[in-house]
Amino acid sequence: MSETGRESFISGEKLYEGRVLNLRVDKVGLPSGRTSVREVIEHKDAVGVLAVLNDSLLLVRQFRYAVGEETIEICAGLIENGESPAAAAAREMREELGFKPGSMTEIGKLYSSPGFCTELLTVFLAKNLTKAPLPQDDDENVKTVTLPIDELPALLSGKKTSIGTGVIKDGKTFAALSWFLAFNK
Amino acid sequence: MSETGRESFISGEKLYEGRVLNLRVDKVGLPSGRTSVREVIEHKDAVGVLAVLNDSLLLVRQFRYAVGEETIEICAGLIENGESPAAAAAREMREELGFKPGSMTEIGKLYSSPGFCTELLTVFLAKNLTKAPLPQDDDENVKTVTLPIDELPALLSGKKTSIGTGVIKDGKTFAALSWFLAFNK
Repeated sequence: MSETGRESFISGEKLYEGRVLNLRVDKVGLPSGRTSVREVIEHKDAVGVLAVLNDSLLLVRQFRYAVGEETIEICAGLIENGESPAAAAAREMREELGFKPGSMTEIGKLYSSPGFCTELLTVFLAKNLTKAPLPQDDDENVKTVTLPIDELPALLSGKKTSIGTGVIKDGKTFAALSWFLAFNK
Repeated sequence: MSETGRESFISGEKLYEGRVLNLRVDKVGLPSGRTSVREVIEHKDAVGVLAVLNDSLLLVRQFRYAVGEETIEICAGLIENGESPAAAAAREMREELGFKPGSMTEIGKLYSSPGFCTELLTVFLAKNLTKAPLPQDDDENVKTVTLPIDELPALLSGKKTSIGTGVIKDGKTFAALSWFLAFNK
């Protein structure tokens, strides 16, 4: 396949360094020879994990300030310094769901918004759960939602389910659930 | 279901207003009574569209500066002022793929990163394509990738395909392809 052409760094400025993200604005050279501006959010890498318990999936419900509403998502969180993605996923499961995985397989490594954000999300499927709760983070308030697997087709096609209608608005969660439906039904 | 509790705005500061995104840092009140800080990226809403042509899917290849590599994604772009999501999807298809859709159905409305970003992405499935090219944006350099539908299971399970191995690293694309495999195979 022919190259689409790289964009090269000319100059840049770090405008903000924060708790979970930084903002950088770079001037870049395009393959055409022109220049453009790229606004880049540097964000810590993260994990998501779809947890299977018997004939159900364990999801989490939480208020998401950025979007101003409660979402239903797979268990997820940031990777801490020195942690492997698998270790982060197991820790987040213990904190958010109270279970640890007996086995995990990787579904994929996904950029959440490659147009402007560096965040890479490793998504796992977890099975053979056993109880092993850890305390939740201080500023999180996450509740478990149990979804019967046989409701997945209805959930992902906008029909009514026991957890609501059209409630999956989180990209990584829609991806993990659709992947599970495609490969495990 | 019990409420997980809203987080309420206490004070905030707009630290950056840019071309495709703004940065806001807010102090918020948590349901527990404590306070915390939320870094919010305000990002324009966008569309993605999975285009089906005969027995293939039409994807696009482009260099993504934020992540420093070329990605393979569904056709996508920002919604322009006054445009409906469906009109934006049809325009992006004409610009990036050179086709317009005869029919479109909505796959879902998805937040790309609800933990910190406002961006809502409407994802469509497009069929009955006819040629209707429009010029690409000046600072984009996008090439079409054709994927035979029967390679989807291999592509989404990390096996070798005609477009490579493990090449789907974009969240919305992984979601749209998995959804298509689940419901159309």
